[in-house]
Amino acid sequence: MAIRYLTAGESHGPALCGIIDGMPAGIKVCEEDFTTLMKKRQGGYGRGKRCQTEPEKVEVLSGIIGGKTTGSPISLLIRNADYANHKHYMHPFDEPSPEGEIPIPLPGHADFAGAIKYGLDNCRIIRERASARETAIRTALSVPARNMLHTKNVTSVCLIESIGGAEGKVNYSLPESEIKKMVDKNGDLFLTMDSEIINVWKSLIDEAKKNNNSLGGTGCVIFYGLPIGLGSHVQADKRLDSIIAAAVMSIPAIKGFEIGYAKALSEKRENSTDGIKFDSEKNVFSRTSNFAGGIEGGMTNGQPLVLRFHMKPLPANSRSESVNLKTLQPAFPEAYRSDVCAIQAACIVVESVVYLALANEITD
Amino acid sequence: MAIRYLTAGESHGPALCGIIDGMPAGIKVCEEDFTTLMKKRQGGYGRGKRCQTEPEKVEVLSGIIGGKTTGSPISLLIRNADYANHKHYMHPFDEPSPEGEIPIPLPGHADFAGAIKYGLDNCRIIRERASARETAIRTALSVPARNMLHTKNVTSVCLIESIGGAEGKVNYSLPESEIKKMVDKNGDLFLTMDSEIINVWKSLIDEAKKNNNSLGGTGCVIFYGLPIGLGSHVQADKRLDSIIAAAVMSIPAIKGFEIGYAKALSEKRENSTDGIKFDSEKNVFSRTSNFAGGIEGGMTNGQPLVLRFHMKPLPANSRSESVNLKTLQPAFPEAYRSDVCAIQAACIVVESVVYLALANEITD
Amino acid sequence: MAIRYLTAGESHGPALCGIIDGMPAGIKVCEEDFTTLMKKRQGGYGRGKRCQTEPEKVEVLSGIIGGKTTGSPISLLIRNADYANHKHYMHPFDEPSPEGEIPIPLPGHADFAGAIKYGLDNCRIIRERASARETAIRTALSVPARNMLHTKNVTSVCLIESIGGAEGKVNYSLPESEIKKMVDKNGDLFLTMDSEIINVWKSLIDEAKKNNNSLGGTGCVIFYGLPIGLGSHVQADKRLDSIIAAAVMSIPAIKGFEIGYAKALSEKRENSTDGIKFDSEKNVFSRTSNFAGGIEGGMTNGQPLVLRFHMKPLPANSRSESVNLKTLQPAFPEAYRSDVCAIQAACIVVESVVYLALANEITD
Amino acid sequence: MAIRYLTAGESHGPALCGIIDGMPAGIKVCEEDFTTLMKKRQGGYGRGKRCQTEPEKVEVLSGIIGGKTTGSPISLLIRNADYANHKHYMHPFDEPSPEGEIPIPLPGHADFAGAIKYGLDNCRIIRERASARETAIRTALSVPARNMLHTKNVTSVCLIESIGGAEGKVNYSLPESEIKKMVDKNGDLFLTMDSEIINVWKSLIDEAKKNNNSLGGTGCVIFYGLPIGLGSHVQADKRLDSIIAAAVMSIPAIKGFEIGYAKALSEKRENSTDGIKFDSEKNVFSRTSNFAGGIEGGMTNGQPLVLRFHMKPLPANSRSESVNLKTLQPAFPEAYRSDVCAIQAACIVVESVVYLALANEITD
Repeated sequence: MAIRYLTAGESHGPALCGIIDGMPAGIKVCEEDFTTLMKKRQGGYGRGKRCQTEPEKVEVLSGIIGGKTTGSPISLLIRNADYANHKHYMHPFDEPSPEGEIPIPLPGHADFAGAIKYGLDNCRIIRERASARETAIRTALSVPARNMLHTKNVTSVCLIESIGGAEGKVNYSLPESEIKKMVDKNGDLFLTMDSEIINVWKSLIDEAKKNNNSLGGTGCVIFYGLPIGLGSHVQADKRLDSIIAAAVMSIPAIKGFEIGYAKALSEKRENSTDGIKFDSEKNVFSRTSNFAGGIEGGMTNGQPLVLRFHMKPLPANSRSESVNLKTLQPAFPEAYRSDVCAIQAACIVVESVVYLALANEITD
Repeated sequence: MAIRYLTAGESHGPALCGIIDGMPAGIKVCEEDFTTLMKKRQGGYGRGKRCQTEPEKVEVLSGIIGGKTTGSPISLLIRNADYANHKHYMHPFDEPSPEGEIPIPLPGHADFAGAIKYGLDNCRIIRERASARETAIRTALSVPARNMLHTKNVTSVCLIESIGGAEGKVNYSLPESEIKKMVDKNGDLFLTMDSEIINVWKSLIDEAKKNNNSLGGTGCVIFYGLPIGLGSHVQADKRLDSIIAAAVMSIPAIKGFEIGYAKALSEKRENSTDGIKFDSEKNVFSRTSNFAGGIEGGMTNGQPLVLRFHMKPLPANSRSESVNLKTLQPAFPEAYRSDVCAIQAACIVVESVVYLALANEITD
Repeated sequence: MAIRYLTAGESHGPALCGIIDGMPAGIKVCEEDFTTLMKKRQGGYGRGKRCQTEPEKVEVLSGIIGGKTTGSPISLLIRNADYANHKHYMHPFDEPSPEGEIPIPLPGHADFAGAIKYGLDNCRIIRERASARETAIRTALSVPARNMLHTKNVTSVCLIESIGGAEGKVNYSLPESEIKKMVDKNGDLFLTMDSEIINVWKSLIDEAKKNNNSLGGTGCVIFYGLPIGLGSHVQADKRLDSIIAAAVMSIPAIKGFEIGYAKALSEKRENSTDGIKFDSEKNVFSRTSNFAGGIEGGMTNGQPLVLRFHMKPLPANSRSESVNLKTLQPAFPEAYRSDVCAIQAACIVVESVVYLALANEITD
Repeated sequence: MAIRYLTAGESHGPALCGIIDGMPAGIKVCEEDFTTLMKKRQGGYGRGKRCQTEPEKVEVLSGIIGGKTTGSPISLLIRNADYANHKHYMHPFDEPSPEGEIPIPLPGHADFAGAIKYGLDNCRIIRERASARETAIRTALSVPARNMLHTKNVTSVCLIESIGGAEGKVNYSLPESEIKKMVDKNGDLFLTMDSEIINVWKSLIDEAKKNNNSLGGTGCVIFYGLPIGLGSHVQADKRLDSIIAAAVMSIPAIKGFEIGYAKALSEKRENSTDGIKFDSEKNVFSRTSNFAGGIEGGMTNGQPLVLRFHMKPLPANSRSESVNLKTLQPAFPEAYRSDVCAIQAACIVVESVVYLALANEITD
């Protein structure tokens, strides 16, 4: 049992809270690490109002003293500013005002399945916990894991490959530093290597917003500098591809996951494996390609670890018909203000949960 | 802690062994259930010699008495017939003969990463455990889970969508019974709804075999009759899509996973959610589509659960260059006899591990 | 995976924090439930100043809305009032002032083992987390579990059997209500059935305090109304005696654990089992005795569950010699103000962790 | 997730089976290691016929090749010779003959609680799994863990402290080698330091046997050479005393557990902590006593780890009244042939499960 964590918190409740147990002692963490990362998660073109208005201030309650992890559980607290506006039906003990009730499940959200599961005719408590707001605290929890891995020369870059079916150009054979430079250049609007796609994506999002629609997309995170042999082939649940898939697929709205270009690889009729070379002067092994996306036999193989994920359009503005669970009559859900496109935030969250998973492998 | 299992066994060792703990008592299991399923896993066009020669006889050591599970741990044993031919380097205690050594890692397999991880110049023990042969015992372990779910009217169908990039026609809007009928008709060669693709796939496999190449593909498993609310939105590792992704991605050679058509969904610019209807006469809810592939908010939503996976070509015949770990000189791995295409077996294994995951949700 | 929880927090850090995941929805919880229980844990004769000065105010951050659990993770926060006095070396980011350093490990505490484990010459961060203060948040986390079990007619009584070797009279064959009445009568000073022992214990504690010594003791918790069959015989880690032992032995200063009167039972030369009777009119089974303490084969057997534990004297006032880890010279640790006797608090904490364990069995 | 294991198998079923996952590679294991340990577990005065007749032959199915662990899961198989005599009601698939039914629960065994839990009027399948025979496979699983710890200079001695209330003399302050010598001298009959108690224990057992009674006792296991800092104070379930208590209390018939002399320590009125000294020449720390039994703050402290446990008399010969679950009429259970006293076997099993727990701490 190395690193494990739990998160808690409703989207409009008093706070988000997270505890991570098992982080090693002595990892340097400063307050800026949290503020910078939380700011990054708020960014990207097409985000909703809520994510801008929340201060996302992370309070460290334990486990970090004098700017260093202690080896004791780290607990983090993020107050929800918006709780003030929802207190009358989100208070722990006060009788909730009916005003907060959500009798009409929003298709695409957890509302319907959750209400049936719990036998409710009010989707409020389901939606509050199912909300992607939870990923804010998971992101914050990744900070010590990120710092630990950085000290081991593990770095990463994340970017958007496509939005609403419009693909940006990528070239992962370029050196990491160059990819980073290109991505950062466009980062305020979109994390992308392709400056030309930006206006396409902007107009797609503007149009979707106009139509009360939203857009999904495909994102990619690449990890550099991982040691060979993280994960294991000896038991199904120790395979790194399985562990990372679980982490990524636990993020709301992500419906698909690939190591490298899995679909393309599944279609190859020519050689599809990565040759092994040894450089006797540098005394290092290298590979002739990276079809495997950095994982062979459930273990890192020393190549860049390439993860790709497919995110559905957020349901927040769903115009699908629904049913009022109190009257069982047809009804349309209240469309609520939310992100038109959250793929950029998703990139940061995917990167975060994978850092947490990798930290666990390294300390395991 | 509901259902958990461990498997053990090397590909050419004495036996494969599995223990599953937490299966409820009273589930009917007969010997045929094992033989039928193991036979299914051996089938499909393009399999290698090994999988035909192994008897795959499953011995029940515990947990099932008089044709019913007892609630005690179920342990299963599958002897490897081929052990007889490898005993001189696979015996638990006897000094291994050097004949068994594998100094040249096979690109695409666990050989290289495993050898480096353990500091070996012989890939034998890595490949023995990393081999997909392990999935035989996981398949056997799924029998009681399958039977339990069948008594709850959960059924499934699995089929191949494409091989080597050649797509077979599918139509998942047809009733389950019809899909099953179509798939069974072609099942000896390929599990597919499309009779016309069969010859295409046959010739692709024949050609690949001729060229010492192998082929991957895309498979799909659909589960019918699942209750609403399996899995949960309350904690990341309880989301059913995360749990199932972990199970599927733990199968060797599977590099990608989708709930429904994730990639297509990520590209949608129109409404992408499934409307909710209520039939007051039948007193049931229904949905207007199944873009979500049966999961919303990490929970089953009462729709068919549609899982798709992308499998890479098996590396067994890899012609990529490699390195002799003893001499560190360039070398070519011994290509070994294996499946040219194992996508059909993968469908059965995916179905098996998901039955295990679903059984756990139902008993949890 | 039913109920699981993590706690975090240093004794003099900003706060204690706990998250419990898996509690069912719909359990009634009111603010008083927390205040009453936390007050009980602070009570008992011979406690130190700290435990009286901490307000022990529990803030619910999530998982409880309108006085009912939601099924989502419950997170609780207890601010440490005393943090104000230790901020200069306990702040998450500020450089710690040397004033906070503890170079001399206190024998009996985690100081020495922890310092060596982490390679420190300052025991501060070890003692901060190892402190029994952590049990305050575990106690708070037990509130929903307690309420859930009470609705299932599970109740409990806890009491002190002996302090410093002086045994109070007990009679567990009396009806629960009577035991409760007797124990409550003396509860402000000592939870005991024996009014005559009170003055003996008082004077023992007064004397220990005078000598800067402290006292341990033996406590007992009895659970009534548990259904038959909690826990399981099928796997070692599912046996309820094992699960409860782990919970109780995880409490600082508790060194021994018994189901019923284990030591006495181990010495019996006559019949040592509990006869089984069936009352055909009431249609219930009963037992002729309770040597087993309520557990047979790792499962509850319908009898009162009797747990006993042995607590060592707290080391806080330890007068044992030690070593200064910076100079490696002999030195005496700073004795610090703490409880002279904490057996009464331990009874509440033991009761709490066992409620958590039992809740897990019932929901599992 | 370091070391974890599952066991399976009924007492009179085809076999016992165990899988252990997470053992490091390269640990030397030979066939004799298994035979010697299994023989030890069968020994001691007062054992029943069954334990002498079972060959207890351990077959290694995987995870050990050429006398070394491979890092892959180790699976072990022990066939039950006695299965031949019980096949007609223990076969996995054949209809069980009524002959095997056990309608009258044996007080003290799992029969009653298990039958009620599962709604049975036949205790057969409960007793088959609840039987202490399961500990044979747990003992076998400990072999690689034992060998790994021995290479790290961790050793142990186990002995009986008392049987049926008759205490043997012990002196744990003697050097390990001397304790071992004394214990081995008497080992065929009883593992004890006290030659004079042997005849007392013999006659107690002979008399118990004559009266169809059985005897419990107290055992002790001491581990030497453990590094400082195994276990942790940071989270409740990481405390070594909690982990070890869970392991020991999971063994059938063990009802009490102590680290060191917990009860005696709880009664101390004088200093009860172990002074710390530093020897600047040898550059080592030492302690002035071992009241803590080797654990402070949930971690090993470099002192011998002293574990004591209290075992109840086995119920096999129970003469307590019971009820026929089919007729609900009063009835007496069939007393069955079993051990009169199994405390010596318990010592070996306790030692085994603690080796497994310690191995996990060292690899974690």
